[in-house]
Amino acid sequence: MTEEPKYSEKMQQLIDLAAELDDLGHIAALMEWDQQVYMPRGGTEERGLQSAMIGKLHHEKFTSDEVGQLLADLEAEVDDLNADTDDARAVKVAKKAYDKQTKVPLPMLMEFIKITSKAHEAWVEARTKSDFSIFQPYLQQIVDLRIEYAKLFQPYDHIYDALLDDFEPGMKTADVKEIFDKLRPQQVKLLQAIAEKEQPDNSFIKQNYKEEYQELLGRFVITRFGFDWNRGRMDLTAHPFTTEFGQGDVRITTRYLNDDGGSALFSTMHEAGHAMYGQGIASKFNRHPLSGAASLAIHESQSRLWENLVGRSKEFWSYFYPSAQMLFPEILENVSMNDFYRGINKVEPSMVRVEADEATYNMHIMLRLEIEMGLMEGTMQVADLPEIWNTKMHDYLGITPRNDAEGVLQDVHWSGGMIGYFPTYALGNLASVQLWDKMLEENPNVPDEIAQGKFDTILGWMRDHIHQYGAKYEPQELMVMATGSKITPEPYINYLKTKYGEIYDL
Amino acid sequence: MTEEPKYSEKMQQLIDLAAELDDLGHIAALMEWDQQVYMPRGGTEERGLQSAMIGKLHHEKFTSDEVGQLLADLEAEVDDLNADTDDARAVKVAKKAYDKQTKVPLPMLMEFIKITSKAHEAWVEARTKSDFSIFQPYLQQIVDLRIEYAKLFQPYDHIYDALLDDFEPGMKTADVKEIFDKLRPQQVKLLQAIAEKEQPDNSFIKQNYKEEYQELLGRFVITRFGFDWNRGRMDLTAHPFTTEFGQGDVRITTRYLNDDGGSALFSTMHEAGHAMYGQGIASKFNRHPLSGAASLAIHESQSRLWENLVGRSKEFWSYFYPSAQMLFPEILENVSMNDFYRGINKVEPSMVRVEADEATYNMHIMLRLEIEMGLMEGTMQVADLPEIWNTKMHDYLGITPRNDAEGVLQDVHWSGGMIGYFPTYALGNLASVQLWDKMLEENPNVPDEIAQGKFDTILGWMRDHIHQYGAKYEPQELMVMATGSKITPEPYINYLKTKYGEIYDL
Repeated sequence: MTEEPKYSEKMQQLIDLAAELDDLGHIAALMEWDQQVYMPRGGTEERGLQSAMIGKLHHEKFTSDEVGQLLADLEAEVDDLNADTDDARAVKVAKKAYDKQTKVPLPMLMEFIKITSKAHEAWVEARTKSDFSIFQPYLQQIVDLRIEYAKLFQPYDHIYDALLDDFEPGMKTADVKEIFDKLRPQQVKLLQAIAEKEQPDNSFIKQNYKEEYQELLGRFVITRFGFDWNRGRMDLTAHPFTTEFGQGDVRITTRYLNDDGGSALFSTMHEAGHAMYGQGIASKFNRHPLSGAASLAIHESQSRLWENLVGRSKEFWSYFYPSAQMLFPEILENVSMNDFYRGINKVEPSMVRVEADEATYNMHIMLRLEIEMGLMEGTMQVADLPEIWNTKMHDYLGITPRNDAEGVLQDVHWSGGMIGYFPTYALGNLASVQLWDKMLEENPNVPDEIAQGKFDTILGWMRDHIHQYGAKYEPQELMVMATGSKITPEPYINYLKTKYGEIYDL
Repeated sequence: MTEEPKYSEKMQQLIDLAAELDDLGHIAALMEWDQQVYMPRGGTEERGLQSAMIGKLHHEKFTSDEVGQLLADLEAEVDDLNADTDDARAVKVAKKAYDKQTKVPLPMLMEFIKITSKAHEAWVEARTKSDFSIFQPYLQQIVDLRIEYAKLFQPYDHIYDALLDDFEPGMKTADVKEIFDKLRPQQVKLLQAIAEKEQPDNSFIKQNYKEEYQELLGRFVITRFGFDWNRGRMDLTAHPFTTEFGQGDVRITTRYLNDDGGSALFSTMHEAGHAMYGQGIASKFNRHPLSGAASLAIHESQSRLWENLVGRSKEFWSYFYPSAQMLFPEILENVSMNDFYRGINKVEPSMVRVEADEATYNMHIMLRLEIEMGLMEGTMQVADLPEIWNTKMHDYLGITPRNDAEGVLQDVHWSGGMIGYFPTYALGNLASVQLWDKMLEENPNVPDEIAQGKFDTILGWMRDHIHQYGAKYEPQELMVMATGSKITPEPYINYLKTKYGEIYDL
C-alpha cells in the first residue's frame, strides 16, 4: 500500500463495500481451495454450511437498498460512466453487477444454489457410472432455471446473451456466433489437411515420468516465467485450478499423471498464466470494485499464451529441452529436439476437451456452444443430448465417444449451472494469439529471448496492456486498446496454419 | 446427523445463532491455520483484514440487543439454569458469554485487538534480538488494558478472577493459589531429591533422526491411539497446535527438529490428545452453544495424558520401542529399553517451559502465575520483569537465563493479551493424573493393554467421562463427575513420586 488515492465520501463508501465483498469472496475461495486440496472427508457437511453462510452474507451485503441508493447517488456524481477514470468505471462495474444481482428473486437464487449442489453429486455419480440418465433430471432443472434467469433480462437480442455476459461482460451471442462462423470452416479445413499427413510419434509423452522431477521442472519453468512465489504457491488437486485470496496470495494447483509426462507441465504453465494475471493487477485496485479480471476470455488468453504460444514453441524447448533430457534421460535421451517438438504438437482428435491440442480445441467449444444455444432457444431437448453430442463429435472431429462419460458427461460446468462459460475458452485462444502478435510486432526479439530462457518482455507487455487494468475495461475495449481490434479469429487461424504448416509440411 | 432433537422456538433460535457463530469461528480458525501452515508471505496484510472482518461479524452477531432479549426469554423458559438438561446448560453458557462480551465497551475491544496485533510483532522482534525493552511498552499497554478489563467485573474476590475465568470457567484465583501452594513445596522437595542422584544419559535423543521416519512413527502412534484421519489431518508449522473447523475436521500440526528425536513425537501425541477431545464431543452438540470444550485445563488434561501418562510410560515403549529401533537402528540399536525409558524421563531443569519434563513443568507455570498476579495486583511492574523472572528461575529451578530470549520473552501468550492462560497448563497436568487414576481404578488392565498397543479402553473412558459433554459442565463439575473430586494436586504428586522414585531410586 503506497500512496492512498483520495475519494469522495460516497466513492469511499463504495470502495469500502467492495473491500468487504472482496474479503468475503476471498474467504469463500480459501474454504473452497482447502476443500479441494487438504480437507479430510469428514469436513464436507460443515464446510458446505460455512460456504453457504459466506455466500449469503455476500449477497445480503451487496443487494441492500442502501447500496442501490449509494450507486444511484454515485451515478449522478460521476456523470459519465464511460469516462476513462477509475471512479467512473468503478461505479459502472458495480452498478451493472448490482442491477444483475438484484434482478434475481431470492427464491430463484436459493433454488439455483440448491439444485446445482445436488446436480454436482448426481453428475459425479453419472460420470462414474457413465449413465447420462442419472444426471438428466438435474440438468433439466438447471436448464429451466437458466431460461427463467435469462428471461429476467428481456428485452434481449438473444436469450443466451445474459448468460454469456456473466462470464464475458459486454459480449453478445451474435458476436460469438460471427466469430465462430468464420473460425469453423477454416479449422475444419486445416484438420482435414493435417489428417492426410503422416503423424509424428508422441509415444515418449505417454510414459511414467518421475513425479518429483515433473514438479521440479514445473516450478523451474514458471519461476522463469515470473510467477511470484512470495505471493503464491502450488499444491496438488484432482483438477488443477487457480484461485486467489488477495493480490498477495494467488495459488495454483496441479496434478501428476503416471502415464503422461506432458499433462502436469502444460497445466502448470496454464495455471501460472492465470495466476500471473491475478498477481499483476494494479495495487490501487486491490479490494476495489475493479479488483477482478476483465473477463474469462481475457483470463484464458493469459493461460493459453503461456501454455501454448510460449510452452509449445520451438524456442521454449530449445532452452528447456536439455534440462528435460537431463531429468528424464531414460525416456528422452534418444528423442531429438525436433521429434520432441513435433510430438508435443501432434494433432489428434480426442474425445476429451481438456486433452485437446491447439488445432482441435476450439471444435470442442463450438459443439458445446451450439448445444447451449439450442437448449436455451428450446430447439434442443436435454433428453437428446447424448445423441446430439455424439453426432456432432463425429461431424467435427470424426470420432464417436464410446460412452456418456467420455462424451456428454465429461465437463463439470453444467452441473454447476455454468451455461455460457464454454465460449470463453475459445475466445481466449483467439485473444491469446492476437495479443501475442501485437507483442511480437512491438518486440521482435521475443523469440530470441525465449530461446535464452527470458520471459520478462512478454510478462511486462501483458502487465502493461492487460493485467494492470483489472476489471476497468470490458474485454472488447481492452482488446481494442491492446491490439487495435476486438477479438477476431484471423490471427489464430494464421497462427495454426503457420505452425502446423511447418510441422505437417502442408 | 442422526436424530434431530426437538427444541422450543426460542431454543431453536439460540441453536441457530450458535451454529452461525460456530461457523464464523471455524472460518476464522481456517484462515489462521492456513496462515500458519501454507500462506505465502504476501498474503499477510489481506489475511489480517479478512480475519478482523470475521471477528467483527462474530462480535456483532452475538452482542446484539436481540440476542440479549432472546437469552432473557430463555432464562425464564428454562427456569433452572443449573438443571442437568442440555437446554438449561446451553442457555447458561450462552448467557454467561453474552454477559461477559457485552460488558466490554467496543472501543476497549478494538484497542485490545489493535495493541495485541502490534505487540505480537514487537515480541517477535524483541525475542529475536533478545531485548525486552522492545516489547516492554506494548506489554505495559496490554497489562493496563487487562486491568481495565478485569475491573469491569467488579466486585470480585481477586482482580485476576475474570481473566482466569475466560480460560477456566468457574475457577477462582483463590482455588488456583490453594492448589499451587500445596504443590510447590512437594515439587521443590522432589526436585532436590532428584538433583542429588546420578542422572540418566539422554544423549541418544539429541541426535538427527530422519524426518521421514519421525513422521511415520508419529502417524503410526496416534493412529493406534484413535486419532480419526477421516476427520482430521496433520501438517507442519513452526509451533505445533491443534485447531478445528467443525467436529468432522480437527487438525494438528507438528515440526521435526534435526537435533532432537523426541520433540516431534511427544508433541504429536500431545496435539493428538487435544484433537481426539475435539473429535469426541457428542454430535448433538455440533454447531450448538455447548460445542466447545469444558476448559483449557480439561483440554490440557487430554493432551498431557496421551503425551506423558501414555507416551512416556514403560508399557507404551515396551510396545513401540522395537519399532523405533527398527526405524533408527544407527541411533538406538545399542540403547537398551531401560536406558531409553530413563533417558526420555530424565529430569533436567531447563530455561524453556515447552522443553520442561514432567517434574519441572509446573514450576515454570507457578513462576508465571505469580508474575501475572503481581502485574494485575500492581505489586510488580512491567519494567522489572526480566529481573523478577531470572530471580524466580534461580529460586525454583536453580538456573538463570542467559538472556531475555530464553527468559521472560520465551512465550507468545502475553503478546496476544493472554493473561490468565498459563495456570491451565499446570491444572491440566494435575487433572490428567486424576482422570488417569480413576480410569485405572475402573480398568486395571489398561497398562497391559498399552503394552499390547491397545488404547481403546483409555479413549473410550475419556469419551464417556469427558469428551462427549462438550462445554455442558464447568471443569470442576466435570472433574467431580468423572473422579469424585475437584482438581487436586495429590494424585499428581503421588504420580511423580512413584515414577521418579523408581527411575531415580529415591
